[in-house]
Amino acid sequence: MESKYCSWGDTVHYAEHLNIFNSAQGSYLYDDAGVEYLDLQMWYSAVNFGYRNSRLMSAMQAQMDKLPQLACQYLHEEKITLAAKLAQSMEKTFKEKGRIHFNVGGSAAIEDSMKVVRIHTGRNLVFAFMGGYHGRTLGASAITSSFRYREKFGHFSDRATFIPYPYCFRCPYDKKRDSCNLFCLKQFERLFETEYYAVVNKKTDKSEFGAFYIESVQGTGGYVVPPLEYFPRLKKVLERYNILLVDDEVQMGFFRTGKLWGIEHFNVVPDVLVFGKALTNGMNPLSGIWAKETLISPAVFPPGSTHSTFSSNPLGTAIGLETMKIIEESDFALQIPKKGEYFISRLKKLRNKYPQVGDVNGLGLALRVEICQKDGFTPNKPLTDAIANIGLSGNLSSGGKKRGLILDVGGYYKNVFTIAPSFYITNEEIDLGVDLFEEALQKGIALTE
Amino acid sequence: MESKYCSWGDTVHYAEHLNIFNSAQGSYLYDDAGVEYLDLQMWYSAVNFGYRNSRLMSAMQAQMDKLPQLACQYLHEEKITLAAKLAQSMEKTFKEKGRIHFNVGGSAAIEDSMKVVRIHTGRNLVFAFMGGYHGRTLGASAITSSFRYREKFGHFSDRATFIPYPYCFRCPYDKKRDSCNLFCLKQFERLFETEYYAVVNKKTDKSEFGAFYIESVQGTGGYVVPPLEYFPRLKKVLERYNILLVDDEVQMGFFRTGKLWGIEHFNVVPDVLVFGKALTNGMNPLSGIWAKETLISPAVFPPGSTHSTFSSNPLGTAIGLETMKIIEESDFALQIPKKGEYFISRLKKLRNKYPQVGDVNGLGLALRVEICQKDGFTPNKPLTDAIANIGLSGNLSSGGKKRGLILDVGGYYKNVFTIAPSFYITNEEIDLGVDLFEEALQKGIALTE
Amino acid sequence: MESKYCSWGDTVHYAEHLNIFNSAQGSYLYDDAGVEYLDLQMWYSAVNFGYRNSRLMSAMQAQMDKLPQLACQYLHEEKITLAAKLAQSMEKTFKEKGRIHFNVGGSAAIEDSMKVVRIHTGRNLVFAFMGGYHGRTLGASAITSSFRYREKFGHFSDRATFIPYPYCFRCPYDKKRDSCNLFCLKQFERLFETEYYAVVNKKTDKSEFGAFYIESVQGTGGYVVPPLEYFPRLKKVLERYNILLVDDEVQMGFFRTGKLWGIEHFNVVPDVLVFGKALTNGMNPLSGIWAKETLISPAVFPPGSTHSTFSSNPLGTAIGLETMKIIEESDFALQIPKKGEYFISRLKKLRNKYPQVGDVNGLGLALRVEICQKDGFTPNKPLTDAIANIGLSGNLSSGGKKRGLILDVGGYYKNVFTIAPSFYITNEEIDLGVDLFEEALQKGIALTE
Amino acid sequence: MESKYCSWGDTVHYAEHLNIFNSAQGSYLYDDAGVEYLDLQMWYSAVNFGYRNSRLMSAMQAQMDKLPQLACQYLHEEKITLAAKLAQSMEKTFKEKGRIHFNVGGSAAIEDSMKVVRIHTGRNLVFAFMGGYHGRTLGASAITSSFRYREKFGHFSDRATFIPYPYCFRCPYDKKRDSCNLFCLKQFERLFETEYYAVVNKKTDKSEFGAFYIESVQGTGGYVVPPLEYFPRLKKVLERYNILLVDDEVQMGFFRTGKLWGIEHFNVVPDVLVFGKALTNGMNPLSGIWAKETLISPAVFPPGSTHSTFSSNPLGTAIGLETMKIIEESDFALQIPKKGEYFISRLKKLRNKYPQVGDVNGLGLALRVEICQKDGFTPNKPLTDAIANIGLSGNLSSGGKKRGLILDVGGYYKNVFTIAPSFYITNEEIDLGVDLFEEALQKGIALTE
Repeated sequence: MESKYCSWGDTVHYAEHLNIFNSAQGSYLYDDAGVEYLDLQMWYSAVNFGYRNSRLMSAMQAQMDKLPQLACQYLHEEKITLAAKLAQSMEKTFKEKGRIHFNVGGSAAIEDSMKVVRIHTGRNLVFAFMGGYHGRTLGASAITSSFRYREKFGHFSDRATFIPYPYCFRCPYDKKRDSCNLFCLKQFERLFETEYYAVVNKKTDKSEFGAFYIESVQGTGGYVVPPLEYFPRLKKVLERYNILLVDDEVQMGFFRTGKLWGIEHFNVVPDVLVFGKALTNGMNPLSGIWAKETLISPAVFPPGSTHSTFSSNPLGTAIGLETMKIIEESDFALQIPKKGEYFISRLKKLRNKYPQVGDVNGLGLALRVEICQKDGFTPNKPLTDAIANIGLSGNLSSGGKKRGLILDVGGYYKNVFTIAPSFYITNEEIDLGVDLFEEALQKGIALTE
Repeated sequence: MESKYCSWGDTVHYAEHLNIFNSAQGSYLYDDAGVEYLDLQMWYSAVNFGYRNSRLMSAMQAQMDKLPQLACQYLHEEKITLAAKLAQSMEKTFKEKGRIHFNVGGSAAIEDSMKVVRIHTGRNLVFAFMGGYHGRTLGASAITSSFRYREKFGHFSDRATFIPYPYCFRCPYDKKRDSCNLFCLKQFERLFETEYYAVVNKKTDKSEFGAFYIESVQGTGGYVVPPLEYFPRLKKVLERYNILLVDDEVQMGFFRTGKLWGIEHFNVVPDVLVFGKALTNGMNPLSGIWAKETLISPAVFPPGSTHSTFSSNPLGTAIGLETMKIIEESDFALQIPKKGEYFISRLKKLRNKYPQVGDVNGLGLALRVEICQKDGFTPNKPLTDAIANIGLSGNLSSGGKKRGLILDVGGYYKNVFTIAPSFYITNEEIDLGVDLFEEALQKGIALTE
Repeated sequence: MESKYCSWGDTVHYAEHLNIFNSAQGSYLYDDAGVEYLDLQMWYSAVNFGYRNSRLMSAMQAQMDKLPQLACQYLHEEKITLAAKLAQSMEKTFKEKGRIHFNVGGSAAIEDSMKVVRIHTGRNLVFAFMGGYHGRTLGASAITSSFRYREKFGHFSDRATFIPYPYCFRCPYDKKRDSCNLFCLKQFERLFETEYYAVVNKKTDKSEFGAFYIESVQGTGGYVVPPLEYFPRLKKVLERYNILLVDDEVQMGFFRTGKLWGIEHFNVVPDVLVFGKALTNGMNPLSGIWAKETLISPAVFPPGSTHSTFSSNPLGTAIGLETMKIIEESDFALQIPKKGEYFISRLKKLRNKYPQVGDVNGLGLALRVEICQKDGFTPNKPLTDAIANIGLSGNLSSGGKKRGLILDVGGYYKNVFTIAPSFYITNEEIDLGVDLFEEALQKGIALTE
Repeated sequence: MESKYCSWGDTVHYAEHLNIFNSAQGSYLYDDAGVEYLDLQMWYSAVNFGYRNSRLMSAMQAQMDKLPQLACQYLHEEKITLAAKLAQSMEKTFKEKGRIHFNVGGSAAIEDSMKVVRIHTGRNLVFAFMGGYHGRTLGASAITSSFRYREKFGHFSDRATFIPYPYCFRCPYDKKRDSCNLFCLKQFERLFETEYYAVVNKKTDKSEFGAFYIESVQGTGGYVVPPLEYFPRLKKVLERYNILLVDDEVQMGFFRTGKLWGIEHFNVVPDVLVFGKALTNGMNPLSGIWAKETLISPAVFPPGSTHSTFSSNPLGTAIGLETMKIIEESDFALQIPKKGEYFISRLKKLRNKYPQVGDVNGLGLALRVEICQKDGFTPNKPLTDAIANIGLSGNLSSGGKKRGLILDVGGYYKNVFTIAPSFYITNEEIDLGVDLFEEALQKGIALTE
């Protein structure tokens, strides 16, 4: 029935074998046969707080009892309180006043951020990163690097100019991190040296580009963490030419990296910040942007600038509000780095044991494992696919019973496991996860070599 | 707090006075003071089945208990069943095999439909109607008529060519319906007569336009119902030049007009149909498209063509499935036209009494009341705004207690009340609604004349 | 050799039989066999002053002796004097100060005019007429109506919105000129009534369109002369919304219509005027624009705004200067209308005799003959082609010897002879031309019926 | 009069002092006062064969006597013969059959090449070089690097992606030529490694880019000569992904570099070649493209693909034909490199003497002198401007009388003299040129330091 009535145009049919799940709890998904799958990707980081988190479910139920529906042109309390909580938190962190604008789905929030950028700069064109991902609406596809996402959909008149990301394990300029002095950033700065580099009018210092879209840690690109000095130096260049920094935190936001926003690690204040996914723990597509007051005040972004039926829907805002409360009451800032370190320490042991485990790295609980040829460097997509499929087959046996393992594949060469476990994962579950991973790895090596 | 931390860029601040609601039931919203507001717009037709509809709330709760979250690259039963139900229903109605592709928010579904169109036609450009509304992402804004939605956001390279809609109360060609013989359609057909009308290459009969985007009944444009023969004749022209018909049913779908899809009234099979809003009765932004098999089969719309984190989220599909069951078990096809007729009959009495009530019309429970000057024709926006604000003030007294009335304003001149009540509205509630409306009308006339 | 080494991409191979000419004088071309062809199109109006006009040839020779070459970043006297003569003449006619900017080829001048428009309005989009032609660079193709000129060349992001031209013989709205009260113009005005017609923001009266490109008399469209009141009323609408009027006089300029610019007949002052072709009588592609001082002063159109190697080349400006002197010393303003009337009177006799001659009309010496079916209305392209090919075959015998006749075909249905004879054509040559035309017409009728 | 009636939008008013010239001969221009200016730029290489070259003037006069005007839809012999000569010469050089398509002005020919590219590749987007210049129509401006040329003219939907040029004196990657192994080219190749570099779909090896526009030697960019191996390696990458190589020879063609086309030095066959300027020695803007038969055969580039009134005008083709005959009868292939070497040897002496002369280089008679600070590297625009203005002031005295010197400034930092003397310059004139240059240099240094 699925193969007949469902479009195959989404990502379901990437898989060799189609898994159907019918329940979930904490870090686990269950299929019809009751097999338990340890989930190490948590809906690409949308379910940071664990499947069926009881506080968040209760918040939703409470809102259902009260006011589950309301046209977004009228107000409800939860919208206001959530916006205030988010904006106040940013004000504290970034020392910048700003406002929140809600929408549904990360792409729609990205499109709203483009509207803010265009009003401010009068320019359609932006910079974005090679390896960057910002969504699949036509507008978001124009600033997402992969040509495959545009190829069949006509001409994209606002295609971004894509800049190499500081991906040090595979430095685009063949440099070594300890001696490079951020050569990649110097390359970007060089573009502003003369008008003949096609970026700036040296007589006015105005640029053809209105913004630079970044992910603080690249998501789909393979959870690549940039050097600490990169973003601050980038921001300085951008400020010189009035180019806005738009920080897409859809995947890394809400403590995935150990802080509320990934960008907080880098001592940089974005001009616009885009959030989504984990705000509702996957129970409502609520998303949104925060922008500096000068970019989003009623004077410049007046009523009617944008609209969406479900933009600040009551159920989404109620869950989001509870999420913010959970965060405020938590010690995630301590726990997440600690769990991340433990997870990495366990994965590094695999790296030492298997040459195919090429890079292990991460920030908070956004972890990466790069699968390579035996040289530890050449990307190995077949082995990566094999491991993922073995995990999904539900035939692993580590921990003493038939189990499955949910992994997500990313990276420029589709050879990176982007690991994003529940924030409530225990050390025992991490151990189990690594054991299952090793089991799948061994089977995968056997299959592909 | 709202004025400080919330963006004003949505439609909240259109209003003179900001209403905060905190509960809802059936056809009613309630504010902090407990004042009851009869809602005649039901979240622009997103809550067709009444606030806090118990069957739909139960379906959501059941899904929360089972599997509230799941990455959309894996399958859950409700997605498959809902897609099958929708596609099978279309197959029965339209005699066409097709598939369903889900997303969240109407705009994102519109963008997916654009992808389908571009793949098939290789063309970025489309026709759309003056007065048409298809959403506010950048791509959707390009095919939505109002220039205000594009003005501040740079250059739109894929701006649609907008064609006059058959709005007979204000015929764009000053014709009378009984003698016009659809002159407006003849004008459209004329564009294909020579290559010098900028639409077609007469040597190849290929057109510069890949699709025509329509609403079966214009929504934001003011619930304008086209003549019955219009769409069938339009479709014939389009077919001659391989131009797809994309039917946006986001606002009119799910029985608003008395049939599942508005287009069913017009004996036309669309090539792509876009739906959203009422599918979940406002509890989840689930949206989607149906397209003919030739346009969406895996061969032409293969895995990875598009993607969205929340596209077929379990909560949304579970509610949508229950909505389809309610529809199957209902007699909406009988009840809705009947209620619509009753409502119109009551409104027509007002028209006979007040010259300012210029046009009363509708299809099913999509009703329009056009507010005019005393000549019964010149649009009267000040009076329209006054009536709406009086309704929102909650100071009406019809029916013996302090009440409010929720109305939505649309139309090319912002002088049309687009009335979309709950499908479960009773005749008594209709009577109350008309009484409240008349009270507000009288007060509005007193204020503005 | 031609068929092997020459691109066929120009218009040479439209013809059935390829004519090679090797000399010319006055109104005549001669082929290898010495056959004389009376030319009634004069290089689509580029050779208004007759082949091998001795004064203009002498002017060119004098410049060759003096300064045939000079980089356009340096000055030569003829450029300055020609610019002054043109601008002073416009100032006298239009009561507007302005400046001249030269380039080569009509399309390049059109592109310069677009730059002026974009600077002033900040908008890429313009209106242009159905049936209009402004050139074949990519930019000019975007505002030229025929889709065929864009079809194979990708997506055109700045495609004009095309408006029906007041072509009264084939009224797009089926009106009659004597009772229409310019219904077509009222249709255009209507677009500004509400923002939902996709043209204007009613809150600011700003338009999505920066300019309206017109030809005072449509050239390629078939020498269609608009009603006298049309342009003045159009201009009023445009001024209300700050939309510039750009008048393309490339084909009609330099007295083709009996005045220096075709627009002078219509009592309208354009904001920008584009000229080319006849300025050098076909001996140099010199073209240019005039724009009002406010649009082209150094403050808004500063050094380096545009550039072209040959823009104000000495040979072209020297010939252009002599052309202006000839015009000043001539009585073209009297002679051309007189000759035009005589020519039309002769052609009208044909119309009375042959039902296939459907419309005879013109302004000055820009004349049109529309070839139709026997009903005098339905366009007859096969007969039109036959007549043109018979003329080119050089086998006519009117006037007592073997002769040819050069005619150009235009019009929306390619059934219009656009007649543009030399300004020095005599009444005897007109008689000969009409006789040759009648001979070809008779033969053509015999062939195609 | 000039300041009042001429647009300042061209490049005339870049100059401090406006020179008016009134005669020319050989390598010299003369102003009103009879001062002789040695011209070392020859109208940016348009007058390669010397001012008032008698053979070329005679050819033009002969054509004036015969057939100076002819609509381009008819044929004349000179067009055919010139096309054949050009195409046959290319066939001999490149071992490729092809065809010639004429137009007027380099930009219009560039636009024709874009049409050829778009037909073949179905893609609007192209690569071009940083520092590249291809003209100033809107289409050509989109692929010309300087943002200044686009800044005020709205959004450019087909903006090229600009790639660093192999400018070894100022290596964009801080490499040294002897050890770089063309790191810059490796960087370009890298873009095709994964789809995440935004250039290619690795599953189909199809690219988002249809062509790469190059100048064999960068013109406006400062006569920068690339390493010999660069273009052959570039072409290999392009061929792998079906990306066409379009070679813009407008400035370097017709023996400026010592070969008919600059690209001949690099052992690469372009897919399309664009020519202009020197073909008529500055007496007619004739330009054109050559394309491989598969790209321009009548099957793919059929009649009506493009058009321009003056495209193959008789005067231009007659001069062009004589130019080709002169070339055939000349020993330019020997003489030009010899003269170039002598010129360079003299300039290098200046470099050894003045630290401000930073780089001296060239190919054939396309020479560059880069003016720097005392460190011999930092660009020195003020000194460059001073030297140019001193030359134009006509107050130099080298060679024993009051003289002027005509120099053109180019380069990314506007600090490069791009020297392009007449092909008939004598060694004595070279000596004089270098003496005048040294005199101006000394005065300039005195003024600016």
